[in-house]
Amino acid sequence: MSKKEITIYDLAEKLGLSAATVSRALKDHPAINSETKKKVFALAKKMGYRTNKFASNLRKQKTNTIGVIVPRLNSPFMSSVLSGIEKTANNKGYNIIISQSLESEAKERSNVFTHFNNRVDALIVSLSYETDNMDHFQSFINKEIPLVFFDRVPESINATKVVIDNFRAGYEATLHLIEQGYKDIVHITGNIKRNVYKDRFEGYKRALTDHNILYREDNFICNDLSEDAIYNCIHNQILTRKKLPDALFITNDTSAAFALSILKENGIKIPSKMAIIGFNNDLISKVTEPNITTINYPGYQMGETVARIAIEKIDNKSEKDVTSTVILNAELVVRGSTVKR
Amino acid sequence: MSKKEITIYDLAEKLGLSAATVSRALKDHPAINSETKKKVFALAKKMGYRTNKFASNLRKQKTNTIGVIVPRLNSPFMSSVLSGIEKTANNKGYNIIISQSLESEAKERSNVFTHFNNRVDALIVSLSYETDNMDHFQSFINKEIPLVFFDRVPESINATKVVIDNFRAGYEATLHLIEQGYKDIVHITGNIKRNVYKDRFEGYKRALTDHNILYREDNFICNDLSEDAIYNCIHNQILTRKKLPDALFITNDTSAAFALSILKENGIKIPSKMAIIGFNNDLISKVTEPNITTINYPGYQMGETVARIAIEKIDNKSEKDVTSTVILNAELVVRGSTVKR
Repeated sequence: MSKKEITIYDLAEKLGLSAATVSRALKDHPAINSETKKKVFALAKKMGYRTNKFASNLRKQKTNTIGVIVPRLNSPFMSSVLSGIEKTANNKGYNIIISQSLESEAKERSNVFTHFNNRVDALIVSLSYETDNMDHFQSFINKEIPLVFFDRVPESINATKVVIDNFRAGYEATLHLIEQGYKDIVHITGNIKRNVYKDRFEGYKRALTDHNILYREDNFICNDLSEDAIYNCIHNQILTRKKLPDALFITNDTSAAFALSILKENGIKIPSKMAIIGFNNDLISKVTEPNITTINYPGYQMGETVARIAIEKIDNKSEKDVTSTVILNAELVVRGSTVKR
Repeated sequence: MSKKEITIYDLAEKLGLSAATVSRALKDHPAINSETKKKVFALAKKMGYRTNKFASNLRKQKTNTIGVIVPRLNSPFMSSVLSGIEKTANNKGYNIIISQSLESEAKERSNVFTHFNNRVDALIVSLSYETDNMDHFQSFINKEIPLVFFDRVPESINATKVVIDNFRAGYEATLHLIEQGYKDIVHITGNIKRNVYKDRFEGYKRALTDHNILYREDNFICNDLSEDAIYNCIHNQILTRKKLPDALFITNDTSAAFALSILKENGIKIPSKMAIIGFNNDLISKVTEPNITTINYPGYQMGETVARIAIEKIDNKSEKDVTSTVILNAELVVRGSTVKR
């Protein structure tokens, strides 16, 4: 088989048509009759003709790609979001180019630069743990290339953001524990530089205050939520206490499930001795014993929403970009890990 | 801020240099001194200059992108593989374009066509459940564009494949159950059109035969491994039996964990009444009670390996492509769900 690139001239010669006719047929031009178009398409497919996307994109200044930067690809929540983004983008004829910041500001900066050089038509981002300086997004803002943030979003940038109400979710999770009679509630979460963790933490504190429970600093634990971090935190910051806390509010279900299994191994009965509440409503929260009470966070719908918004922005580039925040619903799902029988 | 595209002429004018000098500086040409290069790079960055990748790629016929087609983005195994692919590709200066077939042959065909038209430098694929006809890969083969399959690979195509020894893994899982005294072993798995499920099934059957246990067709259950399918299977094909089987070998940990929680809800003690063995060694296998015995399947390393191979193939396009199969190690991890105390 030949590796030579098939051109419209090859198609024209085989079909006994002019190159101009073939070119117009491939573009579905109304002046060409449908029989001819059918013949041209059939041969193009058979011979492996590819539209010269580079040249065509050079004219249109459009690449039909959307860049996506996520902290990590291998998290249940992120893979649900990506699944929703890909499905929606693909249905609209866009490809997605995915990169991960691996929670590093430097890698995120380099990812943004790469997407910029690749001339993506839009960029979708969830921030890394450590990102402080947002200057690397300025190139997109200056060029008015659509920029949409989701989940972990910056406060300092005027761009469209898709989030849940993390303050309210944190409040409701804590309130539920208080209503069940728990008072000494530890909150284990990620870097509170990020809105998601900061807002949940604020919701937790407010719920305590509203119910006359003193917030204690030693009940607030921040780490990177890795398996190692959870292991060490439970062993060295929870089990070593003279008086054990009576509840843990942990900011994702994977960490909550892992914490639950460590506590059980150490003879702590859940929920009679200690309650646990997670976040996200991942499948893992439904297979532990007891099942874990959690906040249902609709990752797949969030993915669909951010992709839809990004594409709308691409299509309406001339219109004035209105900064907006879209808040998706998240609700408490009560299970056995917080309710004494 | 202006939306006008910055050109080398703008840079040249600001710096008082010729456009040719700027162009050579940006290409790190040895004839230009490093001071000048530094100035040019600094201004290019400041003004938001982008290399004209389209034109440059048009010359090189290279896009620096690798296409990836997976059945579903939101599976723990696939997200580990993708994480490994992205990390490796990114380190070598490649972007990845990801699409999902959603287990449909038609969608997979359309994905392949899109990647072909996008002129990816290589394509990495794990097949959908239902793909029968492999003709859609012919365009890549004809053009000698590197094509690498992983996990779910075709038998009929001569391309590089990265897999584990699924026959051996299926054999070892079953052998372990037999050695623990279990005899009536049900195997719950996916579509055996796919090598991964077929080979595990063959390993299961061989282990039974080697130990004089009769293989029974009603102990072999195929479904799409969704939450609904597992729920229905456990309720209608396991719990309804007059004599319950004494062990289940389930082809992924998510399904195994979910099955375990349903069985426990129905009063079945694990492993004294029924043993369960999973596959993959996902975190979920470590948070159930008891923890689930499984086969450790190194997804992240598989991702690194396929990306490395794809890039080697891109770099050595002139060399004759040698078809090869790379087999990664997978080993049994014994936990409480199969070992009676």
